[in-house]
Amino acid sequence: MPRYDFHSPRLFVDAPLAAGQRLALDAAQANYLRNVLRLRPGDAVLVFNGRDGEWHASLTDGGKRTGALAVGEAARAQTPPVNLHYLFAPLKQARLDYMVQKAVEMGASCLQPVLMQHGQIARINRDRMRANAIEAAEQCGILTIPDIAEPIAFDRMIATRDPSRLLVFCDEAADVRDPVAALRAARASPAPQPLAVLIGPEGGFAAHERAALLALPNRVRLALGPRILRADTAAVAALALVGAVLGDWRDN
Amino acid sequence: MPRYDFHSPRLFVDAPLAAGQRLALDAAQANYLRNVLRLRPGDAVLVFNGRDGEWHASLTDGGKRTGALAVGEAARAQTPPVNLHYLFAPLKQARLDYMVQKAVEMGASCLQPVLMQHGQIARINRDRMRANAIEAAEQCGILTIPDIAEPIAFDRMIATRDPSRLLVFCDEAADVRDPVAALRAARASPAPQPLAVLIGPEGGFAAHERAALLALPNRVRLALGPRILRADTAAVAALALVGAVLGDWRDN
Repeated sequence: MPRYDFHSPRLFVDAPLAAGQRLALDAAQANYLRNVLRLRPGDAVLVFNGRDGEWHASLTDGGKRTGALAVGEAARAQTPPVNLHYLFAPLKQARLDYMVQKAVEMGASCLQPVLMQHGQIARINRDRMRANAIEAAEQCGILTIPDIAEPIAFDRMIATRDPSRLLVFCDEAADVRDPVAALRAARASPAPQPLAVLIGPEGGFAAHERAALLALPNRVRLALGPRILRADTAAVAALALVGAVLGDWRDN
Repeated sequence: MPRYDFHSPRLFVDAPLAAGQRLALDAAQANYLRNVLRLRPGDAVLVFNGRDGEWHASLTDGGKRTGALAVGEAARAQTPPVNLHYLFAPLKQARLDYMVQKAVEMGASCLQPVLMQHGQIARINRDRMRANAIEAAEQCGILTIPDIAEPIAFDRMIATRDPSRLLVFCDEAADVRDPVAALRAARASPAPQPLAVLIGPEGGFAAHERAALLALPNRVRLALGPRILRADTAAVAALALVGAVLGDWRDN
């Protein structure tokens, strides 16, 4: 597969992308390219919009506060996103920022906050989550911005769950001797299956929440090793195992 | 295994630990317990020193700026650390702090900065690394503080390497179709083996560094999925896979 150069300036835009197009930059984008990255007219940028793949572009002339991009050739075709929902109990802001960025790097296609009994946070700023998701995608060469779902109550998540989506939930109380074997046993077929990974609050699942999860069909309960992990660490660890055993890490 | 309560105040101390002992707190520890956590005389704390396991203790009377702990009963016996060295190209400070904390959570027994051609940072603050390691161990119920090694030049790391320690190095240019199978193939025996995980700089390995790594015996070259990961994300992902396939995640 084409490998992405970590150090090319890369910008998410909303507009459709095609060769020859001119993209007006908003004030934040112009500031980022001209004053943070110190690009000059003619300098190269990669742009993507989550739908039309990645394109070469160059900065065109403009004042300090505005600017535009001229879109040139296609760089990479849009890749189909992994069908991987990341469900999590919201954290306080700085660690939530970090967790969102990490989930995007790990390829989540949807970020779903779930309100649970022992969670500490009930309100989240979806705009800020989206800004963090865009930043992570820009920095890591990812072509799709995940959906940022409205927070949902745990009971409603259980009631509305699609049973064809394998749910992997991480529970430090699980007596799992081999997490790779547990995931492998859940592989329904060699074809990719829709996946969801749930990381609970750092206070742990409430007893009725654990019971509801265990009663679900098509689920895997996983312990992530013998040490307790912070929720943002558990996110990366679980998404790595799921990616490697069930996701798209096997075809790269 | 005994599970750790995430929310107990937990303090690393240097002194030997035994029942009935009195531990004088230094100014920073006293400030943390009395003014940050707002504990009062008689309140419970868990203490550990990396050697003698974990002990129940309680705050004894004292002024605002000093204090002492009375050590009571043993809480957990010292566990043997995993023999897992984490080798990494130093990052800039905030992300290095984070990476150190994550490596401790993931059970690394030694943190070894390695200076590589495309690394951006050559000097590191070992005291700050140690403070971050202690903080992560305190927060996550870990009983051992990893060694913080002096930075070492890449060539010297290669020249002085113990060939009996399996080296897993993460290289986004690797053509690995199944990272779990690659790790499993490197399992020498069912017994635990000494392990090392190397995460290179975000600029990637230089050609001569990659060649030197590939020429080593007892090494595994691993790609961590089809997306590019930041170095601190790659650390958690790699340590999760290594823990699950070769480390101590299988016995918990």
